[in-house]
Amino acid sequence: MDKSFACALVLAGGKGTRMHSDSPKVLKTLLGESMLYYVYKALKPALGENVFTIVGFESGQVEKAFPDMKDRFVLQEEQLGTGHALQMGWDRIKESGAEYCLVINGDTPLIQDQVVTDFLDAVKMDGADLSFMSITPDEPAAFGRVIRDKDGQVTAIVEAKDYDEAVHGPVSGEVNAGIYCLKISAVDSLLSKLTNNNKSGEYYITDLVDLAVECGMNVTAVNAGNSIDLMGINSPLELAKAESALRLRTAEKLLESGVTLHNWESVVVGPGVEIEPGAEITGPCEIYGSSKIGRGAVLQSHVRIVDSVVDSGAIIKAYSHLEEAKVGRDCMVGPYGRLRPGAVLEEESKVGNFVEVKKAVLGKGAKASHLTYLGDSEIGAGTNIGAGTITCNYDGVNKHKTVIGEGAFIGSNTALVAPVTIGKGALIGAGSTITKNVKDGDLGVARGKQVNISRASKKS
Amino acid sequence: MDKSFACALVLAGGKGTRMHSDSPKVLKTLLGESMLYYVYKALKPALGENVFTIVGFESGQVEKAFPDMKDRFVLQEEQLGTGHALQMGWDRIKESGAEYCLVINGDTPLIQDQVVTDFLDAVKMDGADLSFMSITPDEPAAFGRVIRDKDGQVTAIVEAKDYDEAVHGPVSGEVNAGIYCLKISAVDSLLSKLTNNNKSGEYYITDLVDLAVECGMNVTAVNAGNSIDLMGINSPLELAKAESALRLRTAEKLLESGVTLHNWESVVVGPGVEIEPGAEITGPCEIYGSSKIGRGAVLQSHVRIVDSVVDSGAIIKAYSHLEEAKVGRDCMVGPYGRLRPGAVLEEESKVGNFVEVKKAVLGKGAKASHLTYLGDSEIGAGTNIGAGTITCNYDGVNKHKTVIGEGAFIGSNTALVAPVTIGKGALIGAGSTITKNVKDGDLGVARGKQVNISRASKKS
Amino acid sequence: MDKSFACALVLAGGKGTRMHSDSPKVLKTLLGESMLYYVYKALKPALGENVFTIVGFESGQVEKAFPDMKDRFVLQEEQLGTGHALQMGWDRIKESGAEYCLVINGDTPLIQDQVVTDFLDAVKMDGADLSFMSITPDEPAAFGRVIRDKDGQVTAIVEAKDYDEAVHGPVSGEVNAGIYCLKISAVDSLLSKLTNNNKSGEYYITDLVDLAVECGMNVTAVNAGNSIDLMGINSPLELAKAESALRLRTAEKLLESGVTLHNWESVVVGPGVEIEPGAEITGPCEIYGSSKIGRGAVLQSHVRIVDSVVDSGAIIKAYSHLEEAKVGRDCMVGPYGRLRPGAVLEEESKVGNFVEVKKAVLGKGAKASHLTYLGDSEIGAGTNIGAGTITCNYDGVNKHKTVIGEGAFIGSNTALVAPVTIGKGALIGAGSTITKNVKDGDLGVARGKQVNISRASKKS
Repeated sequence: MDKSFACALVLAGGKGTRMHSDSPKVLKTLLGESMLYYVYKALKPALGENVFTIVGFESGQVEKAFPDMKDRFVLQEEQLGTGHALQMGWDRIKESGAEYCLVINGDTPLIQDQVVTDFLDAVKMDGADLSFMSITPDEPAAFGRVIRDKDGQVTAIVEAKDYDEAVHGPVSGEVNAGIYCLKISAVDSLLSKLTNNNKSGEYYITDLVDLAVECGMNVTAVNAGNSIDLMGINSPLELAKAESALRLRTAEKLLESGVTLHNWESVVVGPGVEIEPGAEITGPCEIYGSSKIGRGAVLQSHVRIVDSVVDSGAIIKAYSHLEEAKVGRDCMVGPYGRLRPGAVLEEESKVGNFVEVKKAVLGKGAKASHLTYLGDSEIGAGTNIGAGTITCNYDGVNKHKTVIGEGAFIGSNTALVAPVTIGKGALIGAGSTITKNVKDGDLGVARGKQVNISRASKKS
Repeated sequence: MDKSFACALVLAGGKGTRMHSDSPKVLKTLLGESMLYYVYKALKPALGENVFTIVGFESGQVEKAFPDMKDRFVLQEEQLGTGHALQMGWDRIKESGAEYCLVINGDTPLIQDQVVTDFLDAVKMDGADLSFMSITPDEPAAFGRVIRDKDGQVTAIVEAKDYDEAVHGPVSGEVNAGIYCLKISAVDSLLSKLTNNNKSGEYYITDLVDLAVECGMNVTAVNAGNSIDLMGINSPLELAKAESALRLRTAEKLLESGVTLHNWESVVVGPGVEIEPGAEITGPCEIYGSSKIGRGAVLQSHVRIVDSVVDSGAIIKAYSHLEEAKVGRDCMVGPYGRLRPGAVLEEESKVGNFVEVKKAVLGKGAKASHLTYLGDSEIGAGTNIGAGTITCNYDGVNKHKTVIGEGAFIGSNTALVAPVTIGKGALIGAGSTITKNVKDGDLGVARGKQVNISRASKKS
Repeated sequence: MDKSFACALVLAGGKGTRMHSDSPKVLKTLLGESMLYYVYKALKPALGENVFTIVGFESGQVEKAFPDMKDRFVLQEEQLGTGHALQMGWDRIKESGAEYCLVINGDTPLIQDQVVTDFLDAVKMDGADLSFMSITPDEPAAFGRVIRDKDGQVTAIVEAKDYDEAVHGPVSGEVNAGIYCLKISAVDSLLSKLTNNNKSGEYYITDLVDLAVECGMNVTAVNAGNSIDLMGINSPLELAKAESALRLRTAEKLLESGVTLHNWESVVVGPGVEIEPGAEITGPCEIYGSSKIGRGAVLQSHVRIVDSVVDSGAIIKAYSHLEEAKVGRDCMVGPYGRLRPGAVLEEESKVGNFVEVKKAVLGKGAKASHLTYLGDSEIGAGTNIGAGTITCNYDGVNKHKTVIGEGAFIGSNTALVAPVTIGKGALIGAGSTITKNVKDGDLGVARGKQVNISRASKKS
């Protein structure tokens, strides 16, 4: 597809009242990504960066969510209908230099890039002045009916309630899917003729079809069969059902690519996740964002992984929770391992149960196996962190760093008060609160002396 | 519905042998509530408090589970059949002052209140002496077949095995659902005529139909279509399938009301839970009892919430477990946050990973982010509880209280030996065991002095 | 079935390229057990120990996984087809003394023992020289078509692509399932006639059918209807779908046996697990290996149990993770309880949230309720382990033991440096690091003295 052939305008100004949300409808998510993310993803192969977006309700939230689209948002201050939205974006569309403009709603997350490409190819072929996508769903519901003459030429779109077999002929079931491709030079003259003389007092893009037919323009419809993929999502129920369809579709694709899934129907994988063939994953689990899972990695059930990398051969045990973390080759995490942003586990290192790691690097083969908090830390290769170790990184105002050398041994139930440095091969006695640096190879200990008292009578 | 028109008798005396349980069958649960709970719930709109219950097997368990129904239980000492149960309850029914008595099995949890109301309305209309509900299921199975004459008048119920087309006419598929509405004055004379001359030697309510027909009474059947909602549950398999149906039905209703659900098929919500539109919930998860979830609250996957309140804007992260807890507006809990009974999080407070809170109040904006146990405590607004803090509330005999003022800072790995009070703005040094009160603004510290020893040779 | 009647040869030499695994295909798991496990299980009732296995790719992994089958593996060094595999195993088959040899692929995990028994019974009855199982699936796909003459006698197996109605008659839909029963004395003479004159240059067992027919032998096919249970599994997608079918089938069987399951479709139970009627289990959860769950035990959602025993009346709360552990009668574990190998909870003992137990015995009624690590320990009956207790069992080289007597009380946030013994009824002060033994009834304490300093200015 020649990218200068067409630009796109995405309509993302609506509130989506039925969603009962304080955010714009297009930011509602499926598998961790917004509806708008999916639309952009489907447009990208055919249209590249040549995509404008109409924003309205809580426009700032949309713009913030897609910093890459900066400077290509157009604010529709009042919500006066799709036709009005198109008018608002028209100057930008004309400036784009494209011959055609694809207009699509931002609430159609199931659309696939191939559909977009095929539509544009069809338009290129027939040179339509105005083309739209149609579908023939099992239940035509409230969609506008497509009327064609005996040559198959589109002559009108009639609202469901206005359809009259006597006038319009037998029902074909073909309805307007609401995705348009407009020849910019042709439609330019029609745009100002849109009116809001209708019940809701809004301007509709659909009316362009009648206007174009009246002017004798070449109006075409490209039928996409009975696919539900083009349908807009207007309610939590529609969103939930679309998400389930997408979840299963994604899991099947992973299986076909060679990923092993157990309890496969409950494996939730976002659209930006990459999983290599040969990984083994057990549901229920969730993998979101830009996560990458390597060949031979094993994810047990009940893990939740966001924007993280799990290298080959690593094992993530049940109930582990990873965000913006990096788990190296042959590492072991969990069960109940929590890796927060900036956690980096170098190869063969281990984070065990009830351990939290934040902004900390564990060197090769280092271990923190139980009940530990490592924050703002560097842990040397081969070091062992005893159970119940806490890095006291926060003094109520600032965060400070704990550095532990290679091959050190931190006794259990130890508090390391940062900033503090423990040398290579150093030992820390169990139960210590360490406030001063310990040199390489030295022993640091800080605890009370044990007293045993006969006939215990005090409470503990 | 005029409440004095009818009373109800719920049959809840059975053991339910196929359940292999030490509890009565009617206490087996769906979505966290017993079968009997659902039956009471369906009866309430039409019948109010005018509901009696026959108990038998482990009657004490049933009575304990429903303290509100106190004084309206009737003990059936021997289990001699449904007819016998009715006889046992008859005095109470007559004393109720109602004109009719609805008789229903306690093992029909899928019944909906509208069905009850419609049944009573139909009876009121036709003034039947004896009426029962019938269904026309896809598989009539072992249910008793309803026989009607050519005017549609019920003439008999015939057991499945005794049905003979030559005698009874072509099969209609209509069967007895086992829910009766008896005109008390009419049936009074029939009750003593029930016999147990049958294979199992039990008295059956069904036999009242023949007796009433014989006496020329007005016997009617109200058909509820092919609904499975009236069917009794007799085995774990039937219970499991009914629970799944109810789970999906509940989730669909939530979606329709404006709640956003992800992975919606695995969201488990009990019948007494209230969730405001605009909440966002990810399955698999469970919400039971009388929990309330506010608009804009976010529940991540794998949470389990019982009898708790989560206010608007609060975020409950994955693997959190709440029981009889209150989470205020814009709070953050988890992942792996455990709130036990009496945990109260005031607005904007935070409970992080591997933190347990029991009978404790966290003031506005207070934080306990990691590896902490707070029991029997009051934590002032804005106070920061360091990682690894333990309130030592138990001395082996009694529980004692820990009170911490506003804006305090508790260093990590600290034990607070209750009873103890830490003043406003006080600081506690990391690694301390605090046994004495600390005044407002003071520093309390209790730990051994650090010694560093060269050439470490001791083990830690 | 007379066990000397037949032996079996299982073909388990393949890599299963589409699995993208470093292990042989037959080791891929369903519900925690390998495909080969299921095949062995199905063969056992009819064939006892008389089962040989052809191994090839990564043969050591297969042999290691089934130590019980030692000495009955035959290495096929080159992978030259099923016929070649049979040739490799033939000497062992002849030595077995059996009259027949059942040949089956190791990638058919859904096969049930009854099918095997019925097949052998049929062969015994008809005295076939060569018999194979056929199925009539909904989609015959690429399976070889079975051709029978008008008497029903098998005359050939024709590859799908070579099937010609003009030559072979109308399609019957009956296809070769790839499970053979060979009369050893008869087939002995055919085996050397197998050739690899085909596209893939491999030797195929299928070709034996033509050879046998040519020689006028008695060739029969035993039809198993449209069951998918005999189909081989070649890809992650087929594996996933078979596992789901098995998961639901297992759950239904449990329900029918009297186990109560909530959210039953997500209950994952392995084939070697035993669960008594009257247990109550909530999905999603996983129970694997040789676990045993007693009557009246309650497993909440999100538990993962491997090779463990949970006795009657025990409650395993949500997110608990058990491996090779034993939980006695009326114990309570979790939520977030982690029992590692060697954890033994005697009756009525309790392990609470964020507690890890490894190679440790808790005596009757002992409690470790919060944030604790017990490793290599013996805890006496009735002893209370305070929150935040850590047994320091590892000195960087060896593991040491902690012994605590009956009725002791360990204060919170205590480190017990092993080897160490705490006497019966002893008390340990909160926040102590205990390095020396404490006698029966004594109080041991080891902590710094508290100092309160006015105008706190130091950071903690």
